[in-house]
Amino acid sequence: MGLSSVEAIDAKEMDYRSLSSSEHQQPPYMHKVGVPPKQNLFDEFKTTVKETLFSDDPLRPFKDQPRSRKFILGLQAVFPILDWGKSYNVSKFRGDVIAGLTIASLCIPQDIGYAKLANLAPQYGLYSSFVPPLVYAFMGSSRDIAIGPVAVVSLLLGSLLSSEIDPTTNPIEYRRLAFTATFFAGITQVTLGILRLGFLIDFLSHAAIVGFMGGAAITIALQQLKGFLGIKKFTKETDIISVMKSVCRSAQHGWNWPTILIGAIFLTLLLFAKYTGKKNKKLFWIPAIAPLFSVILSTFLIYITHAEKQGVEIVRHIEKGINPPSVKEIYFTGDYLLKGLRIGIVAGMIALTEAVAIGRSFAAKKDYQLDGNKEMVALGTMNVVGSMTSCYVTTGSFSRSAVNYMAGCQTAVSNIVMSIVVVLTLLFITPLFEYTPNAILSAIIISAVIGLVDYEATILIWKIDKFDFVACMGAFFGVVFASVEIGLIIAVSISFAKILLQVTRPRTALLGKIPRTNVYRNIQQYPEATQVPGVLIVRVDSAIYFSNSNYMRERILRWLTDEDEQLESVNQPKIQFLIVDMSPVTDIDTSGIHAFEELHRSLHKREVQLVLSNPGRVVIDKLHASDFMSQIGEDKIFLTVGDAVLTCSAKSPAEVV
Amino acid sequence: MGLSSVEAIDAKEMDYRSLSSSEHQQPPYMHKVGVPPKQNLFDEFKTTVKETLFSDDPLRPFKDQPRSRKFILGLQAVFPILDWGKSYNVSKFRGDVIAGLTIASLCIPQDIGYAKLANLAPQYGLYSSFVPPLVYAFMGSSRDIAIGPVAVVSLLLGSLLSSEIDPTTNPIEYRRLAFTATFFAGITQVTLGILRLGFLIDFLSHAAIVGFMGGAAITIALQQLKGFLGIKKFTKETDIISVMKSVCRSAQHGWNWPTILIGAIFLTLLLFAKYTGKKNKKLFWIPAIAPLFSVILSTFLIYITHAEKQGVEIVRHIEKGINPPSVKEIYFTGDYLLKGLRIGIVAGMIALTEAVAIGRSFAAKKDYQLDGNKEMVALGTMNVVGSMTSCYVTTGSFSRSAVNYMAGCQTAVSNIVMSIVVVLTLLFITPLFEYTPNAILSAIIISAVIGLVDYEATILIWKIDKFDFVACMGAFFGVVFASVEIGLIIAVSISFAKILLQVTRPRTALLGKIPRTNVYRNIQQYPEATQVPGVLIVRVDSAIYFSNSNYMRERILRWLTDEDEQLESVNQPKIQFLIVDMSPVTDIDTSGIHAFEELHRSLHKREVQLVLSNPGRVVIDKLHASDFMSQIGEDKIFLTVGDAVLTCSAKSPAEVV
Repeated sequence: MGLSSVEAIDAKEMDYRSLSSSEHQQPPYMHKVGVPPKQNLFDEFKTTVKETLFSDDPLRPFKDQPRSRKFILGLQAVFPILDWGKSYNVSKFRGDVIAGLTIASLCIPQDIGYAKLANLAPQYGLYSSFVPPLVYAFMGSSRDIAIGPVAVVSLLLGSLLSSEIDPTTNPIEYRRLAFTATFFAGITQVTLGILRLGFLIDFLSHAAIVGFMGGAAITIALQQLKGFLGIKKFTKETDIISVMKSVCRSAQHGWNWPTILIGAIFLTLLLFAKYTGKKNKKLFWIPAIAPLFSVILSTFLIYITHAEKQGVEIVRHIEKGINPPSVKEIYFTGDYLLKGLRIGIVAGMIALTEAVAIGRSFAAKKDYQLDGNKEMVALGTMNVVGSMTSCYVTTGSFSRSAVNYMAGCQTAVSNIVMSIVVVLTLLFITPLFEYTPNAILSAIIISAVIGLVDYEATILIWKIDKFDFVACMGAFFGVVFASVEIGLIIAVSISFAKILLQVTRPRTALLGKIPRTNVYRNIQQYPEATQVPGVLIVRVDSAIYFSNSNYMRERILRWLTDEDEQLESVNQPKIQFLIVDMSPVTDIDTSGIHAFEELHRSLHKREVQLVLSNPGRVVIDKLHASDFMSQIGEDKIFLTVGDAVLTCSAKSPAEVV
Repeated sequence: MGLSSVEAIDAKEMDYRSLSSSEHQQPPYMHKVGVPPKQNLFDEFKTTVKETLFSDDPLRPFKDQPRSRKFILGLQAVFPILDWGKSYNVSKFRGDVIAGLTIASLCIPQDIGYAKLANLAPQYGLYSSFVPPLVYAFMGSSRDIAIGPVAVVSLLLGSLLSSEIDPTTNPIEYRRLAFTATFFAGITQVTLGILRLGFLIDFLSHAAIVGFMGGAAITIALQQLKGFLGIKKFTKETDIISVMKSVCRSAQHGWNWPTILIGAIFLTLLLFAKYTGKKNKKLFWIPAIAPLFSVILSTFLIYITHAEKQGVEIVRHIEKGINPPSVKEIYFTGDYLLKGLRIGIVAGMIALTEAVAIGRSFAAKKDYQLDGNKEMVALGTMNVVGSMTSCYVTTGSFSRSAVNYMAGCQTAVSNIVMSIVVVLTLLFITPLFEYTPNAILSAIIISAVIGLVDYEATILIWKIDKFDFVACMGAFFGVVFASVEIGLIIAVSISFAKILLQVTRPRTALLGKIPRTNVYRNIQQYPEATQVPGVLIVRVDSAIYFSNSNYMRERILRWLTDEDEQLESVNQPKIQFLIVDMSPVTDIDTSGIHAFEELHRSLHKREVQLVLSNPGRVVIDKLHASDFMSQIGEDKIFLTVGDAVLTCSAKSPAEVV
């Protein structure tokens, strides 16, 4: 505790026994405004960098440890499995096995469907549920996340890639570009993690994500109409108008009624299973195994009825065997390098957003800390490794992570179990999927993505913040009516516009005295608060920066003009003191100081005294550094609004209430 | 004043006579946190739009006026001369004539020089000091600004235009593009004014402008080395390295010593005149007429010595007569339309920034209000009209406005006087400039721009805000070492980065009790403040938005962990209550509410009670709209930190200090 400040106040100290003492002319105790000890420039810089990039203090456990221990801690930091693996036991393993088997049964049909969304052959979806979950199990720190291909990223990737290469005419080049994009998505994620720029994904607001996800879910469901209605010629656009036109046009050529029948029956089944699981949390396993059950049942039905001869589209062929290496397929040179890089960055960021959002919400549920930057390194590594083993972009899946959590997963071992089941499927069972009807896969995808349309969250957003709602709807309609990319751009732009609006037009408030206290608060919030005659108290609710300093100055002067006009109309004396409550003003820059100087000058012309109350640590420092402190006088700065008012009204001829 | 709130508190009201009463177990008076009356959605929206776009309340004088009066007020709003013209008198006219003659004598040599900076023939500089000042005099609301071409905008325009068209090989197309850019600069300014988007120029911070202006001044001075040293072959780049190479290379071919001699003598004279004017404010007219005096004297000297035969470059020819019309020269179609538009937008924004900065600072000196948006319409109209009468982009000039002010100008009539003098010059005197040496013009420009290098402001910026200093230096070195455009881009980017950093990493502070008061403040600022055992008080110094909600949550938990560790090391009981002081939290969005919900859940696991103090009007509204209020309980929200601490420590087994 700095001695100087303690000494500085000794002279003025008086016992502050009673608030009402001022009425008896007894001078009340007033504490001086603190000027913090001068900070070293380097220290200040270090603090800023630390709070910005290392706000989670990642090196904390390394402090004061011997070198060998540091090495082990470092290994554990990169591979958390070395840490939690030590306390792994049979009871945890039991939970993980059950959860792993459950998510495996859910992921196999989803994988095949999602691969089609990305315009890739079905086995690539299964490949992507083998290697990445294994890598994540060793490097990730979330205990609940289930890794694999997800609907939104598959759609995004498919849409971005096919605008570069046509997947039907050039499937090989298309696939190579997909691996290239996956590689760079991973590199983007690792880079963001290592440079500790993870906070960048915070710029996609919750509201924007809700809207984006909802829009993507609708778009994905619309895409499924192709398989669901058995349409042969389908649009390549993803917007609702193109899709609806496509559907109407094909209606004239006749839809495939056996396909629709099968799809409708199983979609009803799946949705009913989902409803059951929602009603009774203990029956969570019903919606989890319903997809695999539907696949088996429908495949068997087709096989015995040979409905494919009635035009029911079936999967036909899935390559048998595990992931072939694909390092050589990645474009490291040429035109496609840049295109892959661009697509990879976008897909990587969206994948990160989804994984981090899931990871955070489960970590909060079980109350463990998740290091966002470390997660990014883990997710990135898994995608880089994935791109070399025929996988496309993977991330944490909303639906499978929720099932994983409810099935009682304990650690990332459930991902390993799922991965093993997928390998066994690839090695032995894939030929059995030959007769699986595409309509079932469409039904499974529709029932999976329908949960992404979160209307309850949207209603809550509307209730809480109208601007957020605009961002949410902008993203939603952007995705549904234009494209995934345009929806994303709209979401990010509105989010940024909100930030800029906030810093350009901060709120100001008039303060009044709360009856029977010495506390001054916004008179709009506390209508019972009374203003002090001759004194106008304005609070500025933001840091004062170049972007708002002029507005702030003009706004304060306008409060003063308004008040004076009103006082004049009732023949009251004019305002003599303007108290600016600086409590919420956390920082001020040179433009802000200039604005205050101009304000001071304008007030001087009007014979109004400027008084400041409760400037914070940074602000008082800067007021001292500039000449402003001496311009208005140290004795015009008070610790609280109450102190300032007492002093002002003592000087003012007007009566004190 | 709302009655309901007054009624609501009746039950709890107790006389709050003494702060120390709590020590005697007498329950202290605690005022409830106010929930403001519900605002109508449309009203809320209207208020936001009004504060954002119409914060200056432009329609205020029109209120409750008859229609005929409204028409006159409307005319006066567009042409302020109709308003102030009514009270114009002989004494004001005397001041304006003297000021007008003084700035005319300053502007004529500057105009010729600045036109060369923009790669235009000298008469275009004079043209630009005729029409635009006249238009401004009728429409502008600043009384002190002096309109005409300025150094920085001329340089910027010259540099942007010549990257499109070579001015030496295609002078006619170059000039046409210049008029096109001027036209669109004007359109940009009018549009910004009418759409009331004037606040956009606030995004160029004071610090960035200081750096940019300083860099531009250095660049302009470097460009003058061509005229000053009499170099024939000079680089077209503006960066310091290219210029210095050019200068060194030409040194081998021999500089023109008579040119250098004349230039040096007159530069010394000009700088001495400037110094005299600075020392004694009454002698302001000496630096004001020194340029014209130098021109006359040097022209006479060259005329009698015929030094041009020794290789001293002279002006040679200035077109006689007033501005020819140039509407037909503007490109309204074709490739150059878009290029002109792009250049016009940039030049128009920079011109605006300069004019508004000057207008504001003089308005503050004389305490009159300046309507930024109206100014933009005036400046824009003057440039649109100018582009049709052979003028290039004009704006308010720093140096001439300062002279105008010191010479005692009263109204914009001084601009009319200047304009008349320029016309007379164009009609009768231009042939006399034939023998004016270019070196004198260079000397005049150097002495004019040298004042733009504001090292005192730079030192102040360093003292006040290090981040501002980085923006300032970035802009300065960007302009000097790269180009004007790059300097601008750096300045804007750093300014934006600052805003983003502010909203991503807000400050937090631990609060303690100031001795002998009931006030809680940052313990870093007030080292004498004491923390309350078992209670941790954290203040969040920013609105809580999606961009910082996760950081905020993690930071608060880190404060708690740190504090608990420290308490454990001295065998003290753990923290039981976490009070979050929301005073500076002016707003919260859905992501912020989510973060609070997660924080509440994490604290619950640690058996720490979350308590909120002094949430503002908007925050309390949103806490109510979401479910969070009922999650933590209404009784966990207090008006002041003091109230919260009293309640917490009454429940806590730990002793109260």
